[in-house]
Order: sequence, then structure tokens, then C-alpha cells
Amino acid sequence: MSGKISFSSDYTKGAHPQILKRLSETNFEQIDGYGTDDYCKSAAEKIKKLCGTPDADVFFLVGGTQTNQTIIDMLLKPYEGVVAAQTGHVAAHEAGAIEFSGHKVLTVPSLYGKAGAETDADKKAVYSDEVGKIKACDLKALLETFYGDDNHEHMVFPGAVYISHPTEYGTLYTKKELEEISGICKEYKIPLFLDGARLGYGLMSKRTDVSIQDIARLVDVFYIGGTKVGAMFGEAVVFTKGAPTAHPVPIIKQHGALLAKGWLLGLQFDTLFTDDLYMNISKNAIEMAELLREGLVEKGYQLFIDSPTNQQFIVMDNDKLKKFSEHVRYGFWEKFDEMHTVIRLATDWATTKEDIDTLMKYL
Amino acid sequence: MSGKISFSSDYTKGAHPQILKRLSETNFEQIDGYGTDDYCKSAAEKIKKLCGTPDADVFFLVGGTQTNQTIIDMLLKPYEGVVAAQTGHVAAHEAGAIEFSGHKVLTVPSLYGKAGAETDADKKAVYSDEVGKIKACDLKALLETFYGDDNHEHMVFPGAVYISHPTEYGTLYTKKELEEISGICKEYKIPLFLDGARLGYGLMSKRTDVSIQDIARLVDVFYIGGTKVGAMFGEAVVFTKGAPTAHPVPIIKQHGALLAKGWLLGLQFDTLFTDDLYMNISKNAIEMAELLREGLVEKGYQLFIDSPTNQQFIVMDNDKLKKFSEHVRYGFWEKFDEMHTVIRLATDWATTKEDIDTLMKYL
Amino acid sequence: MSGKISFSSDYTKGAHPQILKRLSETNFEQIDGYGTDDYCKSAAEKIKKLCGTPDADVFFLVGGTQTNQTIIDMLLKPYEGVVAAQTGHVAAHEAGAIEFSGHKVLTVPSLYGKAGAETDADKKAVYSDEVGKIKACDLKALLETFYGDDNHEHMVFPGAVYISHPTEYGTLYTKKELEEISGICKEYKIPLFLDGARLGYGLMSKRTDVSIQDIARLVDVFYIGGTKVGAMFGEAVVFTKGAPTAHPVPIIKQHGALLAKGWLLGLQFDTLFTDDLYMNISKNAIEMAELLREGLVEKGYQLFIDSPTNQQFIVMDNDKLKKFSEHVRYGFWEKFDEMHTVIRLATDWATTKEDIDTLMKYL
Amino acid sequence: MSGKISFSSDYTKGAHPQILKRLSETNFEQIDGYGTDDYCKSAAEKIKKLCGTPDADVFFLVGGTQTNQTIIDMLLKPYEGVVAAQTGHVAAHEAGAIEFSGHKVLTVPSLYGKAGAETDADKKAVYSDEVGKIKACDLKALLETFYGDDNHEHMVFPGAVYISHPTEYGTLYTKKELEEISGICKEYKIPLFLDGARLGYGLMSKRTDVSIQDIARLVDVFYIGGTKVGAMFGEAVVFTKGAPTAHPVPIIKQHGALLAKGWLLGLQFDTLFTDDLYMNISKNAIEMAELLREGLVEKGYQLFIDSPTNQQFIVMDNDKLKKFSEHVRYGFWEKFDEMHTVIRLATDWATTKEDIDTLMKYL
Repeated sequence: MSGKISFSSDYTKGAHPQILKRLSETNFEQIDGYGTDDYCKSAAEKIKKLCGTPDADVFFLVGGTQTNQTIIDMLLKPYEGVVAAQTGHVAAHEAGAIEFSGHKVLTVPSLYGKAGAETDADKKAVYSDEVGKIKACDLKALLETFYGDDNHEHMVFPGAVYISHPTEYGTLYTKKELEEISGICKEYKIPLFLDGARLGYGLMSKRTDVSIQDIARLVDVFYIGGTKVGAMFGEAVVFTKGAPTAHPVPIIKQHGALLAKGWLLGLQFDTLFTDDLYMNISKNAIEMAELLREGLVEKGYQLFIDSPTNQQFIVMDNDKLKKFSEHVRYGFWEKFDEMHTVIRLATDWATTKEDIDTLMKYL
Repeated sequence: MSGKISFSSDYTKGAHPQILKRLSETNFEQIDGYGTDDYCKSAAEKIKKLCGTPDADVFFLVGGTQTNQTIIDMLLKPYEGVVAAQTGHVAAHEAGAIEFSGHKVLTVPSLYGKAGAETDADKKAVYSDEVGKIKACDLKALLETFYGDDNHEHMVFPGAVYISHPTEYGTLYTKKELEEISGICKEYKIPLFLDGARLGYGLMSKRTDVSIQDIARLVDVFYIGGTKVGAMFGEAVVFTKGAPTAHPVPIIKQHGALLAKGWLLGLQFDTLFTDDLYMNISKNAIEMAELLREGLVEKGYQLFIDSPTNQQFIVMDNDKLKKFSEHVRYGFWEKFDEMHTVIRLATDWATTKEDIDTLMKYL
Repeated sequence: MSGKISFSSDYTKGAHPQILKRLSETNFEQIDGYGTDDYCKSAAEKIKKLCGTPDADVFFLVGGTQTNQTIIDMLLKPYEGVVAAQTGHVAAHEAGAIEFSGHKVLTVPSLYGKAGAETDADKKAVYSDEVGKIKACDLKALLETFYGDDNHEHMVFPGAVYISHPTEYGTLYTKKELEEISGICKEYKIPLFLDGARLGYGLMSKRTDVSIQDIARLVDVFYIGGTKVGAMFGEAVVFTKGAPTAHPVPIIKQHGALLAKGWLLGLQFDTLFTDDLYMNISKNAIEMAELLREGLVEKGYQLFIDSPTNQQFIVMDNDKLKKFSEHVRYGFWEKFDEMHTVIRLATDWATTKEDIDTLMKYL
Repeated sequence: MSGKISFSSDYTKGAHPQILKRLSETNFEQIDGYGTDDYCKSAAEKIKKLCGTPDADVFFLVGGTQTNQTIIDMLLKPYEGVVAAQTGHVAAHEAGAIEFSGHKVLTVPSLYGKAGAETDADKKAVYSDEVGKIKACDLKALLETFYGDDNHEHMVFPGAVYISHPTEYGTLYTKKELEEISGICKEYKIPLFLDGARLGYGLMSKRTDVSIQDIARLVDVFYIGGTKVGAMFGEAVVFTKGAPTAHPVPIIKQHGALLAKGWLLGLQFDTLFTDDLYMNISKNAIEMAELLREGLVEKGYQLFIDSPTNQQFIVMDNDKLKKFSEHVRYGFWEKFDEMHTVIRLATDWATTKEDIDTLMKYL
């Protein structure tokens, strides 16, 4: 709209053309509402097959906060809270949607800054690949302390664990880390929920050993983000062993999350999970991010986080940023120090090599 | 999908082609999120101008229950409830979404059946045009009783009034009735909220004297339904005198109702409110409903409700219904008696004369 | 305080002297908090033995609304509501405490007025013994309609049934009625909850065939009211087959209902359930109410409800009432007509024959 | 009950004898319910006079968590959270009662351990007087960050500040600290709430410069704890400039916090605020705590926190603790290291010199 190129986020564009095409083709079909249609069924079947989880329950919601809120409310008993990283989306950026549903978010520290950092500069100078992640040992400590004796009935019970993959900082869990966290959850009989708002970009990272089948095997529920990965809107929720309630519909409805024309969601995910479209377009974002990263390093920019996914974070001189912003829309992340700012540059499913070339001119 | 023609509801199709076209055209524009974009601004301006409410706050949400829940939560103090007809959507068909937000729905009786009806047959035999509506006298009585003395602090305070127009039964308020209800609300300083999920079909009815300007003048907040009237999805909320909170965004977010790609909503309403599209397509539904109604009367069907809008309700013999259902999808409404069923036949923005002709063959 | 005698309610006095005595005797014992003490254990054992429910879970809360809210929240899933009479305390007089916890109160009509009454006068002229009660047929109809087919997932699930005994109008269920309601609840696998805020006055009525053992056998949870029956404060909750949660404490705490000095409650109920004190003092209230009723009938007063318990309701001429109120505090119930008012006169555990004699002078 | 002397907490005994006496004396008075009585009025007047706040609204609730939950819900808008120390009661020990009401607790770090401590031993070895307190600079930083620009509508708004005085660790704010925090709250127009569950013990500390008038001047609402300071139960809430709602009663009722026999609370506080009783008995607890502290230091015990109030915390060898526990009930606080435990010893309004002597024998 502004004439500037934008790398501000990965939800600035509409939908993959194939989705637009199918929306047009089916526009005058008359389809049953509320997710009871055949497109939803077909999409669910494709996802279950891909994940290797024949007993899964799959349903489709509209957006991320809505999905997090609804799933967590399904998982928890009234007196339970959800464990999340301090930096987790449900802890920090959902305007209290979890608390609105009556539940506390119990936070564990999320490593931020260089290990052993003591000065502010050090804390910010080098970020490890761990930022945004829950550490298995922290989770174990929290659960051990709570469930270790019987005296905690005046505190909030940890009743589920929330992780995001990729995290809000673009980082990824390793398979080993996921297995450890999953193992701890199983030990304490607590469901594990993985927020995959950007799941495709995690799965297609060149620096991951985690597949969607691994995730389906290791967590109790996760969602496959559509809004940020090629869909016009929508998130596919996968309860890998079946939903924790016989009646998900009224719970979804209560949260204002039951889309009347549910087939719009089914149709989109059916398209994304036909001929590997979801993975292919995710791969594009990763390749563009790698190009961008190489360019950044080459030009001597300081990476704020060494991100393996589609979000890249760099430290930029404020004067330079001023000029840069005349040509490029970027994501403000945080103040680095008096003279520098951390910004986010995000690629997506539709970013082209030309976009990167254009961006590079202004860097 | 089934090969049958469907008159089951007015949300079985996608979007008006003009909307699909604009979604395609703008697909790769990079647009700011969360409703801060220019399409939302443009749509809001058009709506404000049409309504004659320059001070209005307009924003866009995804679906009906979500909208009702979010608006009502904005209007009420924690100890207040919303007054609605027993048959109102918020009272009966939202899975407790209002109570989920902590508020009681205080119901007033909604006339159902012939005045003075004593037998079950009579109760169902003739429906007045009043079904689904709040009567001003009932509302006044409720408020008078509550606020008449100081002894009701152990009861739920009536803090807002909810009406739907058209109602869930397709009926309409007259301008005089709206003025009376509005007057009572003003007298008691209680905001009036009009659910316009099917607003277009009410405005274009041949039997209404209520304009959108009347509504904008008489209520504190209403919404213009898109999901059922030509949009792919979406409802335009109009706080006619401005929103009751300085911070609607976090409230919307808390309800999981803040669409990341908010422009998808703005763009649709911008299209619907260009060149009278919303009114024109609504008019089509009404004309088709009138055609249908004439045909029904001609064929001797008993109208369950003499509906002036796009939903028509008839009483059908169960044996006949069985055959009918082989060709037509309809809305089951309720059992009439042992041998008859009440069904709903709904036209919409895209119903054609051919559709009606086809339907007539099976009636 | 005012020098007038009061029959306005049954919670105008402190506690039975035996309770005051034990509070004094134990005042400097140092007792463990939160209901973990031996007095609570002892009281629970006595109640379980009396009820014939060795597997019951018994705990003690402070007041009625708090108890109703906490119990109902324990019984219901998030998408469920509680069925109650329109006149039930949870439906009408708790300022929305149930909705505050996220649950709808689903009401069934509560017979009010003469059967078949058509005029307002008739409606109020004669009240049956049924007012305030749920009728088994109404409950069955509600559950049958809801659970009869699979299409109600957009409505609130009836998840528990609430009855009060005595009701808010002083009326009582018969054993047969309780058995019917209990049977319906069992058929639909829905827990039955009996609010016994005035339980003693129901059990000791001369016109009841219902014992505490009957109640314990027929309901899933009930509470034995202390606040209105001899305790300083407190209600004893009895989950007859055990609590529906492994962790009642955090739920109680969340509701702000966990008394630090829980033994104050245990001690009171231990006293009330020693040597039949609870039943004996309840019997006193009934005997005084019978005396009062006989006097009222003798003096030609119109009984508004023919109440078998400690609350008596009469219709009084407004002029007469004005004089009466100079000497007696009474409970205003409702306007009868332009010239008459319905008032409540309540006896309690401590009402004396002299009190009745004094009252009679002013009648 | 166990024959052991108990220093486990300050809510192990009943009520000051003067309160028992008045409860007995007034037992058969017939008093109006729900806090509308003259005892509540009298107590409120005495408190307002003492505080120097003629415009204050004073009301009486039953317990601490209930009071915190109800007050915070009155202070906050739906999208706001309350700022508290990580160690604050509302953050850590109320089973999620604040979240149950829909609000997030936003935490600021609470200094725990020696400044600059790096080893675990150091972290635990010496506690400053600051533990449990919010630091003004932390509060300012949080508010500055949030309100400093306009981009935080996806986060929870800090809408009130909660502090406890004494804190959960027995520590106290200085007048200067309270003034700073109050000033920051005023600057950001955010109400300040002081939890005074143990207020008397703070006011009577020999190491405080804060009076009840200071508190009344500096905060928007605080409560005077009764449960732990001489009352049988009860907390007196003081909105120093008037309540933030015209209708506190339905809000209190919704929280299940409206005591039917409200005069029981009024009567107790009327007694406590007659002839300085509250301050005098608080002073006793402090004197006994000082005696205890001197004894502990003399015997060479390591003070875990150098507490100026009635709660004393020491580090004890596990073997010694085992023997100690045969004679004394104490409060388990936390594990210190493999061989030591931190315990709490609390004096109260009724602790005698003999009790301390007895305790000393076992130390």
C-alpha cells in the first residue's frame, strides 16, 4: 500500500493462488456449515495420514490466539495452569486470553542472552540458539517441586505444557530436546501442546532434525499454522491421540471460535496438504531467509539471534535504520542500546529472489 | 456437494464474486495487520457515512457468536447481565458464550403462538409477526421492577438490551417499536445492541419501515452481518456514538477475535458498501423469498410464521417431507405434531429464479 | 437493635449457646488450618454416620451463595449449565455468581399461582404447595429434548440439577418426588444437587416424609445449612458418593472459599451433630411456625403459601401493615395488589413461645 | 490438640476474649444482614476516623484470598492485570484465584538472596530486608516500558499494583519506599492496593516509620487483617477515597463473599478498634517476636531473614529439627540445603512470655 517493500512479518499477504483458485471454483457449491463438510474431512484425513496418527482428532480454527486459548481450555482442569516459556506467545502477547479463560500461565525462564552474561551488553550481544525455548531441566525442576510433595494445593497446578516451534524468536527444538520434554510430560501425565503457528518454516529449516511425524509422536496436541504459511487464514489443530473431550464443538462455540462456513478452513488445508504444497512453500521461505542471512553476514550485520527459520533478527544503527525505513517496512523488535535497534526481517511462502535483491540494495 | 439443491440456510455459499475478485487483486499487496489498514479505514468511512454517524467507531470481526460475545462484554459491568428475548440467539444458541464471559442473559418472554392460545395445536397453529421480538412493555416492566426500588443488589443488574433484526424467526421490528425500545433504554441509561447478522434482509424487506439510518440513530451498537449476506465471512460492528472503551483491541484479542489479516474483513465490507452492493444483493434474497412465499401459498402450504424476510417457515406433512428431502436440503426447525414438521427454507444473496423454480417442482 | 421484635428472617441471631460455649473453651487451643483439623474430621464422621454414607466426602464452607457456586463449579464441565427452578436461589438471588463462574442456569418453570389461573388475582390468590419446586415432568422434558437427538451442540448442555429443600418459598418435595427427580438424573447420568440452606426446617416439618437418609441416598451432593439453623455461620457439604474431583482444595481456594481457621466450621457442626442438637433446634422452629400459622388462620389472615416449614407468608392490608411495622420487623416479599402486600414471617431455632405471643398481639 | 506448643502460624487460635464476650452479649439481638447493621457502621466510622479518611468506603469480608480477589476484580478493567512481586500472595499462593476472575498477575522480581549472590549458598545465606518487596525502580521500569509507547495492545495492561505490608516474608516497606511507589502509581493513574493481612504486626514493629495514616494517605485501598490479628475471622477493606464502583454489593455477592450475618464482622472490628485493642495486641506479638529473636541470636541460630515483624525465619540443622519437632509445631518454609531447613516461627496477639520460654527450652 505504501510503495515500500515489506519484510515486517509473514502475515502481510493473502493466500497461495491455488487456494484462491479453489475458493473460486467452489464458491457456489452449497456446503454444510460448522466444519461438518467433506472438505474438512478430506483435509483431516490427509493430515492424519501424513502424521501417522490414525486416531487423531483434527479440527480447524481461524487464528492463533483463538487456537491457543481454546486448546488450553480443553486441556486444563479449572485449578490448573499451563507451563510456558516467559517469552511464549501465550505468556506475553495474547492480551491475557488465557487468564480470560480462567487459567494462569506458569512461566519458566527462557534463555535470553549469552550464557553467563553479566553486563547488559553481554546479555544482548550474542544470543544462543536457545532463546524462546523451555529447557527440559527447568521444566523438570518445576514439576518436581510442585508434585514432589503434597503441600501445594494453595498453588496453581501445572496441568499442561506449551511450547512453540519455531519459537517467537525463530529458534527450534532439536528432536532430542523434544523427546526429553515429552518424556517429562509423560512422566508427570501432563499433556504437551506445541504451537506451530509457523510450523512449516520449522519443518523445512536446514538446521532441524524434527519431522512432523516426530512432533505427532511426541506431543498430545499441536497445530499446523496456516495464517502465516500460505493460507488466507486458519490453523489446523491435531489432537494426536484424540480430543480430550467428547464435546469439542460447544467449547469451540463458547470461545466464539466456531466458523459458520467451516469448509473455508477445510478447503484451504486440503489444498495445502495436496502434493506437498505446505512443505514446498515453506521451503521457499527458508531458502529466501538463507539468502537474506548470507547477505546480512556478508555485509557485516550483527545477527541478534542466529535464527534457522524465516525470521531473521539483526542489530542496526539508528541512523542507518532511519534511511532504511524509507524503503523497507520491517518489524521493530526492541531497543538494543541508545544507538542501536533490533529489527526483524521475515520472509514467507511468497517471498521471491527479486524481493531479497531489492532488500539487499537498502541494507 | 450432494447434488441436491439447498435452501437449508443462508450461509452455504462462499462470497459475492466481486469480493473474490478484489481478494485476488490484492492478494500480493503487503498490508498491515490487525485492522489497522486502509481497507478497513475505507470500509468504516463508507459505513459511517451511510449511517449518518460521523462519531461512530467501526470495527470488523469474524463471526456472529464471537461478535455478540465481544460486544456484550464491552457493554457490561461485571455484575450486569444482558436482557434478551427467550428465543434470542445469545440466550439460546451460542453454547453459553455469554455466560463463559461471566454474564447472565436475562430473558423476557418472546411471543410464540396465537395470543391466548390454550391448546398445543393453537399455540402452534398461527404465529403472529411478533415471534422472536422483545415487547416494549415487557422490557419496561423488567427494568421498572428492577430499578424501581433499591433492594435488588442480590440480583443481576440489567445492563444492556439485545435485540435481533431480523429475529431468529425472520420477523422485524417496526420503526415505532424500535423507537419505544430505544426510548426505554435511554430512560434507564442502558445501551441497546442490535444483532444484524441478517441485517440486509431486514432492510430490504418489502414490509419494513426501518432504514439503516433509523437503526444507527436508535441503537448504541449494532452489527452489519456479512457472513450471511454476501461476504465470505465477517461482521461490521458499529458503535454509533463511539466505542464504550478506550481500548477495544485488547478486549477483542482476549476473546480470540482479533484477525491477524484484518484487511480481509475491511476489503470485503469496502466492496459490499461500494455502489450499494450490500443492499442490492439483499434485495435479491427478498425478491426470491417473496416468489417462494407466493408459490407456497398458492400450493396451499401452511405458513408457520408469516415472515417478511429471507427465511420462510412452513408446516409439512412428514410423508411428503420424506420425498421432498430426496431432492432438497432444508432446515429442520421443530416438530409440529406427530404427523407434521416445521421446516425452514432460506433464500440468500445468490439465490436465482431458477433455484426457486427447481424448488417449486418438489413442493 | 431497634427495640422491635423481628420475624424478618432466620439469620438474625448469632449461634446456639452450646456453640458459643465450645468456641470459648477451644479458643486458645492451637489448631491446624484449612479444615485439616480433628474437629472437622469428627463432624464429618458424625454426618456420614447419620446419613449412612460411609464413602461420602464432607467439607465445610462459610455461606450459601459461596457453597452453591463452588459445588456447581465442581459438578459441571465448562460447556454445561445447571438446571434450576426459575425461582431457585442460584437462578434469581445470587447476583450472577453462577454465571461469574462461567456457567448458565437453565431454568424450568416453577409453578406460581393457582393451576389454570388466568387473571392476575387468580394467579396470586391461591398458591399450591408446589411453588418453588421443579416438577419431574418438566425436568424430564428438558433433558429428553436436549439429549433426544444429536443436534444441540450449539446450546448449553444440562450438566447438573439444582433443587432446594425447603425451597425459597418454604415448600418441600415429597419422597416420591425426590425419587422421581433422582431417577431422571440417574437415567441421564447427571448429578443431583440439593441446597439445604434450611435443611433442618425441612426435615423436622410435620408434613414431610423425607429423612436426611433419603436425601443422602437420592442426591449426589447436598449441603446442611448452618447459618440459618443454629450455627454462627457455615454450611456442611456432603458429596454422598465422594467428591467429583481429586483436588477440591484448590477449587475451593480459587473461589475464595477456603477458611483459614477451618476448625471454626468443624467445631460448629460437631456441636450441632452431637446429641441431635441440629434436629432438636430445627424442631423448635417448626413448632413455633405451627403456632404462628394456627394464630394467623384463627385471626383470618390469608396464607399466601401454605408453607410446611419455618417461613410463613401472608397477605396483609397495606394500612394494617403500616401499623404492624411499628412493632414488628418482617420480610417484604412482594406487592400483592394495590392495597395488599405479601410478607414473610420466619421463625428460627431460637424463637420462643413468648416471641409468638408478642407477635400475635400485633397481628 | 497434639500437646505440642505451636509457633507454626499466626492463625492457630480463636479470637481475643473481648470479641468472644461481645459475640455472647449480642447473640440474641436480632440484627439486619449483609453488613447493613449498626456494628458495621460503627466499626467503619472508627476506622475512617483513625485513618483520617472521612470519604473512605469501608466494608468487611471474611478471608484473605477472598478479599484480594474481590478488591482486585473491583479495581481492574477486563483487559488489565495486577502488578505484584513474584513472591506476592496473589501471585504465588492463592491457587489462581486472580486468574479465576479473569486477570493476569504481572510479576516483578522480588529480591531474594544476597545482592550479587552467585552461588546457591550465597543466594540463600543472607537475606536482605528487601525480600518480598517490590522495588520502585522495577515498578517504574515495567510501567514505563508498557505505557511508553502505543504498541502494547496485545499485552496485558498493568491496571493496579499489589503490595503486602508486612510481606509474606515478614519484611516492611519504609515510608520513603511507600511514597515512591505511591508516586509512581499516581503518575500512571494506577490504583495502589496494600494487603494488610498482618497489618497490625507491621504497624507495631519497632523498625518501622509507617503509620496507618501514612498508608491511608498513600494507597487507594488496603485491608486491615483480622484473621491473623485477634479476630475470629475477617478483614476490613478500606477504599481510602471511596469505592471504585457504585455497586460493591453485587460484586461481593458474585464472589461468594457476602456474609449473611455481616454484623459478625462489624462487631469484631468495632471491638478491635475500641481502646486501641488492635494496636495493643499487635504490639504483644512484636514484643514476643523480639524476645524470640534475641534468644535465637544468643543461641547462635542463623536468621534466614532479619524480619522486623512477628514471623521469624531460621535455618536449622535437619537432625536438630527432627528432635525439635517432637515438642514444637513450626512452619516448614523451604529446604535450605541437603542438611538444613528453613523454618518459620510465628508469634501472635496471644503469645505469652511463658510460650517463648517453653520454646526456648527446645531450641
